[in-house]
Amino acid sequence: MSDEATAFVPGHVTAFFSAHPAPEPAVAGSRGAGIALDDGVRVTVRPAAETRTILDGDPADVEPVGTVLERLGVMATVEADSDLPVGAGFGVSGAAALGTALAANAAFDCGRSENELIRLAHVAEVEAGTGLGDVVAQARGGVPVRLDSGAPGQGFLDGVPARPRIEYVSFGGLSTAAVLDGDTTDLTAAGDRALSALREEPTLPTLLAESRRFAREADLLTERVTEAVDAVLDAGGEAAMAMLGETVFALGTGLTDAGYDAVACDTHPAGATVVEE
Amino acid sequence: MSDEATAFVPGHVTAFFSAHPAPEPAVAGSRGAGIALDDGVRVTVRPAAETRTILDGDPADVEPVGTVLERLGVMATVEADSDLPVGAGFGVSGAAALGTALAANAAFDCGRSENELIRLAHVAEVEAGTGLGDVVAQARGGVPVRLDSGAPGQGFLDGVPARPRIEYVSFGGLSTAAVLDGDTTDLTAAGDRALSALREEPTLPTLLAESRRFAREADLLTERVTEAVDAVLDAGGEAAMAMLGETVFALGTGLTDAGYDAVACDTHPAGATVVEE
Repeated sequence: MSDEATAFVPGHVTAFFSAHPAPEPAVAGSRGAGIALDDGVRVTVRPAAETRTILDGDPADVEPVGTVLERLGVMATVEADSDLPVGAGFGVSGAAALGTALAANAAFDCGRSENELIRLAHVAEVEAGTGLGDVVAQARGGVPVRLDSGAPGQGFLDGVPARPRIEYVSFGGLSTAAVLDGDTTDLTAAGDRALSALREEPTLPTLLAESRRFAREADLLTERVTEAVDAVLDAGGEAAMAMLGETVFALGTGLTDAGYDAVACDTHPAGATVVEE
Repeated sequence: MSDEATAFVPGHVTAFFSAHPAPEPAVAGSRGAGIALDDGVRVTVRPAAETRTILDGDPADVEPVGTVLERLGVMATVEADSDLPVGAGFGVSGAAALGTALAANAAFDCGRSENELIRLAHVAEVEAGTGLGDVVAQARGGVPVRLDSGAPGQGFLDGVPARPRIEYVSFGGLSTAAVLDGDTTDLTAAGDRALSALREEPTLPTLLAESRRFAREADLLTERVTEAVDAVLDAGGEAAMAMLGETVFALGTGLTDAGYDAVACDTHPAGATVVEE
């Protein structure tokens, strides 16, 4: 057993997705596309006599984090610090799970490979019902296109070759579980259409246009989101809704140009990594 | 047709490999493992009436670069600036090819996906005989483990979850073509054994130990390389030979501690990316 270790995991806004449940959680997940953000979650793992999680300074129960530690057979204090709001479509729970897997592997010399750690976090997240595709996207970085559902070895990824500056504004959360527990037939059909269109033309304008179409067709838009997206388009920019949150993301200075007080960040080029101090 | 565009591709030291020729270049390549370096190659592509390549300020004939442009159906001036010596086991030719693919796609709005661009560069590099596995490793970043040969969609990758500081020293080049054109039976058997060992224990010490064993078994060591590797080990460090060059890389400050005048850099966490200015 060695010292503490730290990992950084980018945030991830999902532009669109289709849900693919399966009895085996490593195969289950979502297809879709999104953008990895260099605003993310920093996770530090310290060996401890009892496992506990501290999220942004407060004790928190993040189910996939506990699951990951349990399956690695270790007990630790996990300190997760997020640049991003929780539950608003940025993949914070997936980031916490993946960061825990990477940092715990380093702190306890578990000797797992990156794919094994990604799979562990993906399975924990699917089992907890907190997300379907964020973990594999966050492990990849850039503008990930998830061609298949599932963990590495199941799901094959591609990417849009661009690294845009991003702005985002969040009006609040949407329950991932509530949406995914309902009938997802229409949503998944819309997500599959969007993915086909993006594969035909893997560019940022297509990603954003398909994201807007998906939000309409899957009936996920709220009034505040619609208003903000329309304002950015009216100002000549590109924006869409982050799945699943009451959150709008825009390329470049789209939200600022439309008069919103937005947070700016870059696309995170790398996937999640251990941080060497 | 838009303006110029730039891409950055990390260097890549190969720790060990096995050669897997195939009639189809997208399937051919090597298995193995290595480390992506944040010293790399910056490639700028500008539309031009005639294609020419400038490497570190001088006109150069880099075959895979020309092939990539031709298959994208464009003509351009390609300016490649390398932090790393050419022909010394850092994957500079693969980096030039991949950087050209990414930058040309952006400059000419070719609308290809990342996997398509990686495949294009991989095929061009295999056809030119300048490398077998650097391109896919450089596209991934980190400490890539190539479980299969070939382009994305053929070859499946994993990684060692570590991001060490690296030092390197190069005494000169070795001809990749000369080694690969010979009998590679022993080399490939040694590379396969090394890969199995690393998959059992995907850690940095195993990567370096297997690299040293591979260099011995494949009979690739030179006197200067042996001396430098031994000096680092004697000083309590970890070092090995970069394939294929008369180059030694070490973890942390291994070469400096052993009295060598080495270049230091970090592991590059991301794969190759277009650079947004």
